[in-house]
Amino acid sequence: MLTVYSSDHHLHRGVELKDGAITESFENPLRAETVLAQVRAAGLGDVIAPRAFDRACYAGAHSARYVEFLAGAWDEWTATGRTCQALPLVWPVHAMPSSATLPEFIDGKLGFFAMDAGAPINAGTWDAVSASANSALTGAELLSNGGARAAFALCRPPGHHAGHEYMGGYCYLNNAAIAAQALLGRHRRVAILDTDMHHGQGVQEIFYGRDDVLYVSIHGDPTNFYPVVAGYEEETGAGPGDGYNLNLPMPHGAPESTFFERLDDALRALARFQPDALVLALGFDIYKDDPQSQVAVTTDGFGRLGGAIGALGLPTVIVQEGGYHLESLDANARAFFGGFAAAR
Amino acid sequence: MLTVYSSDHHLHRGVELKDGAITESFENPLRAETVLAQVRAAGLGDVIAPRAFDRACYAGAHSARYVEFLAGAWDEWTATGRTCQALPLVWPVHAMPSSATLPEFIDGKLGFFAMDAGAPINAGTWDAVSASANSALTGAELLSNGGARAAFALCRPPGHHAGHEYMGGYCYLNNAAIAAQALLGRHRRVAILDTDMHHGQGVQEIFYGRDDVLYVSIHGDPTNFYPVVAGYEEETGAGPGDGYNLNLPMPHGAPESTFFERLDDALRALARFQPDALVLALGFDIYKDDPQSQVAVTTDGFGRLGGAIGALGLPTVIVQEGGYHLESLDANARAFFGGFAAAR
Repeated sequence: MLTVYSSDHHLHRGVELKDGAITESFENPLRAETVLAQVRAAGLGDVIAPRAFDRACYAGAHSARYVEFLAGAWDEWTATGRTCQALPLVWPVHAMPSSATLPEFIDGKLGFFAMDAGAPINAGTWDAVSASANSALTGAELLSNGGARAAFALCRPPGHHAGHEYMGGYCYLNNAAIAAQALLGRHRRVAILDTDMHHGQGVQEIFYGRDDVLYVSIHGDPTNFYPVVAGYEEETGAGPGDGYNLNLPMPHGAPESTFFERLDDALRALARFQPDALVLALGFDIYKDDPQSQVAVTTDGFGRLGGAIGALGLPTVIVQEGGYHLESLDANARAFFGGFAAAR
Repeated sequence: MLTVYSSDHHLHRGVELKDGAITESFENPLRAETVLAQVRAAGLGDVIAPRAFDRACYAGAHSARYVEFLAGAWDEWTATGRTCQALPLVWPVHAMPSSATLPEFIDGKLGFFAMDAGAPINAGTWDAVSASANSALTGAELLSNGGARAAFALCRPPGHHAGHEYMGGYCYLNNAAIAAQALLGRHRRVAILDTDMHHGQGVQEIFYGRDDVLYVSIHGDPTNFYPVVAGYEEETGAGPGDGYNLNLPMPHGAPESTFFERLDDALRALARFQPDALVLALGFDIYKDDPQSQVAVTTDGFGRLGGAIGALGLPTVIVQEGGYHLESLDANARAFFGGFAAAR
């Protein structure tokens, strides 16, 4: 297995509005460094840098105006004389008749293209998020050109909350969706399995009307949990995509066995879909001690999950999403990749 | 002229997300105290307390579920163990297919019912905003029952950014809209003239489809100015309300003469509409030195504005909106009310 990693993620470090206050983001550079050290220590194969991709490669997942906004937002923000992290001023909420009009100034654009105040723009944000997306694209390319049967895109910032036209939840470009779209160049049917603690409502939105990408997500019940606005069982896709979106929420406080029951359901859905390639959106935040966890997955459980994914035998891009318990990230990453490698 | 004032406004003091940081809100209790002192010093007539009104009296302007949310939000927030000001976690942005579903937990509700992070909920917010709305209702009632021909509702928090189902921009209940709705019980046609520096997009939204309330607003061009999402000339109303919404934006940096040109346009629109009663949404933030100002209205200008409104001779409720330059509030309030009284 090859790992794709760019140190450019260090260029981004954010804040978030949570519990009524702006605080340093849970999502920080040490997360990626911890997992990288483990990948190297376990001898999981080479670690390579992503190659550069044109912005047009993000187009399957995101609108051109959104990508253009992300790339230029910091310059627009600092042109107003401000040097702190850029956060929105106003959100065009659902109730507003004029909510679909893109504002012209940066404070308005920031809200138009955001679902929260948890995806700030800094000087290095664009370089970090494009390197992160390029890591996922490089992983997909390795599969498509026969360079590898499995690749780990060590993405940071994460991506699965980023929608077609919005950032949020630490996410800017949807790495998993971008990888899936790239895989479709060579593969006919691509499945995305998302085992992050949170529903990847961005992935769901991007592929909601399509039948060439199956999205299956196991996550905490969104009724009173981020991302709140999506992740419910009744969201099954629309139009040609009806039946190609499967949400498997877990009640809060669920034991580890609940996660693996949902995983069985997910694997059955994959078997029915018969994908030619797989994207795994891998979050380590289902770990029992993770500050974001609502379920009790153990380190052994990550080994079992890795084994189940590896045993599918599919060309697989593993894309890193969340995971915020630094003390356990090394052991959990080692367990997951050990299980994955053993089953190939 | 009677002034309606409740000291309950002291129960609310907020923070706001602006320029990428959470800071103490511009909108603070000293604003109301400064104007109140001036009302008293100038002998403008009695200052009375608002009477209590049932929540149902807000129904013409707001949905029942929104009012219920406002009244209970602090209890819901503190039930989760948090004691800081309540701010949203996630906004259901326009791009989300599930954006119209009300979340069940408080962090989600806060975003569902908000357009920004500039309307926090504190322990005293509901008491303050309901007293503010009741001041506007008391003013309307005085007009309707013959108790006065003009009343000044010294409202704080302000209201004109609050929509049918959302708070934002320091506003929770739309005092001007609630007063206009109450006046319709006795008067056939009510005009709302809004001279605050910012467009009152909440008032616009509430009456956008109706022909019994004319909304005319003079404000800074919203292209790159709060509230961003509305306030454009082409927004003229919808359905039966088409032609009953008039936006008169001013370019940023406009001289005082521009304001009075717009006021002439506004007064012509009022003359065509022939209202039976008037609500003036009065912001002092058009003053040349106000931190929010984009126009150069002078203290003399407030006298001229007061004279123009007084000369209409209509039953009038003056509802206080913005105005953040404490050093000039006294002189500007004295000038406005002096001009108003002299013209009656």
